[in-house]
Amino acid sequence: MTFERLRGFRDLYPEDAEPKFFMLRTADQVASSFGFQRIEMPSLESLELYRLKSGDELVSQTFSFVDKGGREVTMIPEATPSVVRMLTSRKDLPKPVKWYCYPKLWRYEEPQSGRLREHIQFNADIFGPNTPDADAEIIGLAATILDRIGLGGQFSVRINDRRLMEALLKAMGALDAISTFAIIDKFKKISREEFSSQLAKSGFPVNRISDLVLLMENPGNPAKLRETIEKVTEIDENLGDIIGRIEETLSLARVYTPSDLVIDFSVVRGLSYYTGIVFEVFDIKGEFRSILGGGRYDNLSKLMSDQDIPAVGFGMGDVVLEMLARRQDLWKVPTRPMRFSVCVASDKARGYSLDLSKRLRDAGYIANVDISRRSLSAQLKNASIQGYEYAILIGDRELENSEVTIRDLSTGQQESIPRPSLMSKLSSLEKK
Amino acid sequence: MTFERLRGFRDLYPEDAEPKFFMLRTADQVASSFGFQRIEMPSLESLELYRLKSGDELVSQTFSFVDKGGREVTMIPEATPSVVRMLTSRKDLPKPVKWYCYPKLWRYEEPQSGRLREHIQFNADIFGPNTPDADAEIIGLAATILDRIGLGGQFSVRINDRRLMEALLKAMGALDAISTFAIIDKFKKISREEFSSQLAKSGFPVNRISDLVLLMENPGNPAKLRETIEKVTEIDENLGDIIGRIEETLSLARVYTPSDLVIDFSVVRGLSYYTGIVFEVFDIKGEFRSILGGGRYDNLSKLMSDQDIPAVGFGMGDVVLEMLARRQDLWKVPTRPMRFSVCVASDKARGYSLDLSKRLRDAGYIANVDISRRSLSAQLKNASIQGYEYAILIGDRELENSEVTIRDLSTGQQESIPRPSLMSKLSSLEKK
Repeated sequence: MTFERLRGFRDLYPEDAEPKFFMLRTADQVASSFGFQRIEMPSLESLELYRLKSGDELVSQTFSFVDKGGREVTMIPEATPSVVRMLTSRKDLPKPVKWYCYPKLWRYEEPQSGRLREHIQFNADIFGPNTPDADAEIIGLAATILDRIGLGGQFSVRINDRRLMEALLKAMGALDAISTFAIIDKFKKISREEFSSQLAKSGFPVNRISDLVLLMENPGNPAKLRETIEKVTEIDENLGDIIGRIEETLSLARVYTPSDLVIDFSVVRGLSYYTGIVFEVFDIKGEFRSILGGGRYDNLSKLMSDQDIPAVGFGMGDVVLEMLARRQDLWKVPTRPMRFSVCVASDKARGYSLDLSKRLRDAGYIANVDISRRSLSAQLKNASIQGYEYAILIGDRELENSEVTIRDLSTGQQESIPRPSLMSKLSSLEKK
Repeated sequence: MTFERLRGFRDLYPEDAEPKFFMLRTADQVASSFGFQRIEMPSLESLELYRLKSGDELVSQTFSFVDKGGREVTMIPEATPSVVRMLTSRKDLPKPVKWYCYPKLWRYEEPQSGRLREHIQFNADIFGPNTPDADAEIIGLAATILDRIGLGGQFSVRINDRRLMEALLKAMGALDAISTFAIIDKFKKISREEFSSQLAKSGFPVNRISDLVLLMENPGNPAKLRETIEKVTEIDENLGDIIGRIEETLSLARVYTPSDLVIDFSVVRGLSYYTGIVFEVFDIKGEFRSILGGGRYDNLSKLMSDQDIPAVGFGMGDVVLEMLARRQDLWKVPTRPMRFSVCVASDKARGYSLDLSKRLRDAGYIANVDISRRSLSAQLKNASIQGYEYAILIGDRELENSEVTIRDLSTGQQESIPRPSLMSKLSSLEKK
């Protein structure tokens, strides 16, 4: 009999868990340095909470069920509804509220490259001010996390604005912005012909399709935003205000990160609840799905409560991030303490070995003690296999002479030193 | 319309999430310093995996359901079956394997003090050697984590051994050790009379009940283990071997921790899969359920696979740990970087403020920038409310003179200093 894990789920063994959690920890530290605070929501919520925001389509892709008490519940498929529930159930919180979390999320959909049934998503949100500063900070936080992970230069932040797109679509005579967004959302995945044909079918004015395609095909420097837009429509006061806000947001975001910030009219984000800036981050080589995505969503709190709290945030899944990090040879833990395996060469040396190991740990090192009671040679072999850098040998001779023997497991060289000199010896090894 | 979280689940707001994750991080670091490696299992597993180990009673208390693909699945109610599944599906791993994890677990049972429907459990296991050294290391790790959290002196490790108890029960003429264990497990919760009556009903020899009660009532110093046992039975060779192993384990465990290590014959652990040492850690004041529990379970891998891998481990839930930490005034994050809120007193100062904040973060501080575009006084008030230690004010004057103004939010004192002197000023504040 053997048991297997479920399809679309992962077992994280140490070789993957360590770099994974190291990256999440980096994101955690960056968010904390920005003054964001960590929260954590339940993994199970009332299904209604998720149906409200996302509708039946998302619900059909959830791990939802009726619990033993008869409640319709779901393993959370995204974080935002829970975060907003937590926010709106605490009216005492002074704004802005800046929160982050990195829960596991679950979706019942066909597993494929970059998408699994269970993943970890790093989320950050700012609730309160609807300002370019808040938008810029969210973009800046996302980019700084990627920079700190070591991905600087490897990604591009593609930015757009829902209000801008709505105004442009209206100027072009589109009747229904939401259904046009759904088609624009597919722009990068379908052919030009297919794109045009779907637009025409949706009732989008046929004579303006080429203008819309022109916008889609001209992502670019924020400085050229006005110029590009003027190719397809006149900039009236409303449009001018919207463009002004985007320009301001981008010039502030520029201070946070040297990374590529690009206006991309094809980024609209599938879900319909965004109300302002939207953005996605892509690998510059274009090999993967988006690394993260987010935007401003000012109406969700009203939908879920009697409160009206503007919001901007992003979510970054761990799956695409891992693929990119692996490609860039970043799938490792860059620094950690020196690692010792203490080999116990005699029964009498056991207590002494444990005590020594304790002191090594107290000094900040990683110290394994061999607990196998095998021969010294087997212990040394195992220390090598397990990847320890040094073995420390304690036997009768060491015990008698108050010594320890240190063996460099990469070279096989070893030396015996007096016990009181051990810590200074280790410091000198560390500096090598 | 308002949404509420499900019963028995928690929302962790920052004031609770920070100390919670700080404690888990402490446990993580201690385990890592012992040479344990972190893993992570799926949160959803085949129900069969859990039914196998724990039987139908546990299954009736799970959040289990039939997924959209028709599989019987469960949100994991404990970690061990998944850990052993991961272990046995990788035959290439050199032993010992020393793993830790801290997954969320879910149980559908009536929420009560110390027990919720969702909790986080810190788990650590050693697979491979069945030695006193491995047993001692697991106890030592558990105690060191509690010591490092700051609970030293507040807890007592209550240790027993399943083989010892089986031998003692046999010597007393008990026919069925497992059903006697179930009664012993209730010893601390029921009266002496009830205890005796249940034993009698179970077929336990009536004339030996007083001996068993004598054992139960005499937890104590490991040095007195033989003496206590001799009060109820002769120590034959088998019993002598078992006692010898316990004594050796405890003398090794003693090197790891100065904490209270006590033999307690009433600790048998409800679940039936333990095969050697068992232990639970209790608050010395006896106010709470056990803080953690574990033991040796050498048969589980055989039950789940064709491999025979001895194992010893423990699990520590976060709920009782939090209750104890709160009582001891440890529910806080002891050290963290200095926290600044940068207040932007003029539109022109915005970019400069962002840049300054970035530099503060790069230097290891926590730097919030006020993104509200409110008045300076509103920004200062908010910085205080949000608990920042210092505000840094940047307005036109500061911009012109290349200065920054630092305001101590606890005293209201402020001073303007040249921008280039800022970092050395902050270092001096830090040392105060």
